[in-house]
Amino acid sequence: MLRYKLTIEYDGAPFVGWQAQANGRSVQQALTEAIEKFSGERVTVYGAGRTDAGVHALGQVAHIDLARDWEPDTVREAVNQHLKPEPVAVLAAEIAADDFDARFSARRRHYLYRIINRRSPLTLERDRAWRVPVPLDAAAMDAAAQALVGKHDFTTFRAAECQAKSPVKTLDSLHVTRDGEELRINASARSFLHHQVRSIAGTLKLVGEGKWSGKHVAAALAARDRSACGPVAPAHGLYLIAVDY
Amino acid sequence: MLRYKLTIEYDGAPFVGWQAQANGRSVQQALTEAIEKFSGERVTVYGAGRTDAGVHALGQVAHIDLARDWEPDTVREAVNQHLKPEPVAVLAAEIAADDFDARFSARRRHYLYRIINRRSPLTLERDRAWRVPVPLDAAAMDAAAQALVGKHDFTTFRAAECQAKSPVKTLDSLHVTRDGEELRINASARSFLHHQVRSIAGTLKLVGEGKWSGKHVAAALAARDRSACGPVAPAHGLYLIAVDY
Repeated sequence: MLRYKLTIEYDGAPFVGWQAQANGRSVQQALTEAIEKFSGERVTVYGAGRTDAGVHALGQVAHIDLARDWEPDTVREAVNQHLKPEPVAVLAAEIAADDFDARFSARRRHYLYRIINRRSPLTLERDRAWRVPVPLDAAAMDAAAQALVGKHDFTTFRAAECQAKSPVKTLDSLHVTRDGEELRINASARSFLHHQVRSIAGTLKLVGEGKWSGKHVAAALAARDRSACGPVAPAHGLYLIAVDY
Repeated sequence: MLRYKLTIEYDGAPFVGWQAQANGRSVQQALTEAIEKFSGERVTVYGAGRTDAGVHALGQVAHIDLARDWEPDTVREAVNQHLKPEPVAVLAAEIAADDFDARFSARRRHYLYRIINRRSPLTLERDRAWRVPVPLDAAAMDAAAQALVGKHDFTTFRAAECQAKSPVKTLDSLHVTRDGEELRINASARSFLHHQVRSIAGTLKLVGEGKWSGKHVAAALAARDRSACGPVAPAHGLYLIAVDY
């Protein structure tokens, strides 16, 4: 038996999310079926991050165990062949240590939230970014974001259905940058609470449009109260871009 | 009566191209119908470039005449409202001089051809770039491209069905750059022949994979023979990015 580490990219738009669910097609299910078609084995695909419906990945990581020893490149090519035409691709397959765990071995996760700041509807970026029509001040958003960096009780920025044992997390970095009409919010941490990045993005948007100051953000964090959070930003702007081990 | 200049973005994937045709939905038709819905006027939408099926635009330009004088922002908002859910958007509407012509007043057109250079299938970039699995040498492609810059007879890089009176065009600039796994071919000229950028992209790809040298490209140009061209690159990697007036 060999354990494989898979690096995976997907367009989250047509999926109910990473995790297999009764109510629709999941990325995990697409991968499980493609792996079974090529190897004949029905395995569990363990992912580093359980992305929600509509959330994308540029570098999701998963691990699987296969009874037969395949060349890693064969695994990548064969799974990709059987994934067609679904918008999921294995970017890399590597042999991993027996105790490698995509979820629990992760040292840091990197998320990107994309905002397109313009009046006109999106065309090529539809379902790939959040369109915000009012002008946003990226520098103000970046400054306000720094209040959230570090070890905090993130209850304010946590979904009601979040299953994490503790709301205390360490946010390693949070940056807001602008490139033309696009704003990018980059967030890195060992782990995140459910809806944490989208809750932060929605709150920073209030700062960007001038409705909130940086002090409001710090006060919202200190409140440890879900109702102090800004509106949660939509799923389709969020990308899991990389996981470090 | 006022003449309006419209700057337009679209995802070319679902369309038969810019120009109205009997065999499917065109971008021009989508715009014509949206303009009629808001203004009550059936007008002709004149475009700067007649993009083929699957070709995208980040900055197509068109002009229209409307009998009633509308605020330009009203035109933009109302047309966008009626374009939904089609992936076409008016980025800007401006009042233009009576003799402004989107096609004939254009001084320079800028195209981008996108290649994603990797083994794995595309997901988020599907239908938005050409995937080339063999490693490409962007520097070699850029060097070879310079033989095509300037005033030349581009018969080699012209579609059989091209309707231009002359195959002689002046290519102002042609650059190939790499950013990670993405190669970008940027081409600028007053005007282009039919399939010229895609023919050039397909030929430079031969250089990138080492099948052709720069001398082959120069010889292909000098041959003035369609059969000397490399395979035409697919439509879905091409973007009309801007038009200068």
